[in-house]
Amino acid sequence: MQNPTAAMLVIGDEILSGRTRDSNMHFLAGELTKHGVRMMEARVVGDDQSAIVAAVNELRARWDHVFTSGGIGPTHDDITADAMAAAFGVSIDHREDAMALLQAHYDRSGLPFNEARQRMARIPAGARLIDNPVSTAPGFSLENVYVMAGVPKIFEAMVASVMPTITGGAPLLSQSLRVERGEGDIAEAFGKLAMRFPDLSMGSYPFIHNGAHGTNLVIRGTDAGQIDLAMGELVRLFK
Amino acid sequence: MQNPTAAMLVIGDEILSGRTRDSNMHFLAGELTKHGVRMMEARVVGDDQSAIVAAVNELRARWDHVFTSGGIGPTHDDITADAMAAAFGVSIDHREDAMALLQAHYDRSGLPFNEARQRMARIPAGARLIDNPVSTAPGFSLENVYVMAGVPKIFEAMVASVMPTITGGAPLLSQSLRVERGEGDIAEAFGKLAMRFPDLSMGSYPFIHNGAHGTNLVIRGTDAGQIDLAMGELVRLFK
Repeated sequence: MQNPTAAMLVIGDEILSGRTRDSNMHFLAGELTKHGVRMMEARVVGDDQSAIVAAVNELRARWDHVFTSGGIGPTHDDITADAMAAAFGVSIDHREDAMALLQAHYDRSGLPFNEARQRMARIPAGARLIDNPVSTAPGFSLENVYVMAGVPKIFEAMVASVMPTITGGAPLLSQSLRVERGEGDIAEAFGKLAMRFPDLSMGSYPFIHNGAHGTNLVIRGTDAGQIDLAMGELVRLFK
Repeated sequence: MQNPTAAMLVIGDEILSGRTRDSNMHFLAGELTKHGVRMMEARVVGDDQSAIVAAVNELRARWDHVFTSGGIGPTHDDITADAMAAAFGVSIDHREDAMALLQAHYDRSGLPFNEARQRMARIPAGARLIDNPVSTAPGFSLENVYVMAGVPKIFEAMVASVMPTITGGAPLLSQSLRVERGEGDIAEAFGKLAMRFPDLSMGSYPFIHNGAHGTNLVIRGTDAGQIDLAMGELVRLFK
């Protein structure tokens, strides 16, 4: 059985300007791998409706699931919900259940539920809400697209609500071996081993530590027995 | 004058699997901003030739410059140089100047200049080499595409060699103000201010610190006087 596929779309000028270092892509990649879903590509676009629409329409046509982060807050630069409505060709308006959630939240906190905050209840027609246990303002999903907040703590909580609703595949397993030798020393034998295990994916990741070259060798796949076998050979070759 | 544009293409299964958290995109974004080049989008693809070819051909047609990281080492999963040759429809072979650089490097270090290491001298026809002061094996550029290593220390050194060869634009300036209020409290006035300064870009980035909501307000642009003026108003509004 093939594993389901996914893509991530990070939305926000602050990532492209270098102001903020995104952490959501790395978090999601790890969660998807544990869940047996393969992340096939990721993209970052700015706060620009046409860029968001083009990217999400390409990605949702190509992969089983698309996860977005960023741009669903109350300020003028939060345009993701409108962009998603445009991408799907549906209307967008304040939705009653989202309004009620937010009204109750701001009643409790004593902050005014003003027009800006009400913007966070604008949800494209036909979407399902995604629970936000951190700050209430919901994300939403439309078909195979999951639209979530950019603040890492909120993004991570939303991923936790969404993941159980997604059918995973066989867990994507990996084992790695750290060798204190440069890639050039291990490349030939490692490449030959990789050819003998066509169902596994083998990658080599060089590093420099205290001026010395080393390599992490990683074997990935869904068959634990095959991975054990290949790792046994790797250890024999390089340890 | 418009600022030149750029895109980044990160290449590597290890980013998409969640094994490695990319840092090159964030580094490059900051360097480009200082240099007056706008990063318009970024993508991550795996070690898959057709995915790399499709992405680089889209990006190089759309933006002034494209920077790639990853996949130029000696192992079987390093397929970026071949993918670039395929994307540009040019041949690829061991190149004499790259071979000489590497031969001298391995002579000095006493390591064998074996077949795997010689792979790193395979350069698409017509490319210019990019200097690698860390570990010698060069990057290369083809037209507007700069192909660099994935190891951050080497990537960063290559960016430093490339950046002076790229014509920058007016520096992209920014100022930011941290306010201890949620986005919903400042959204209306901030949005109105943004409308009054159409040449500036204003973004608001919420954070949660010790359970309290705060917001970083950022004003970006190329006109320092306008940014000062807008920041003055922002301080009056929210401090």
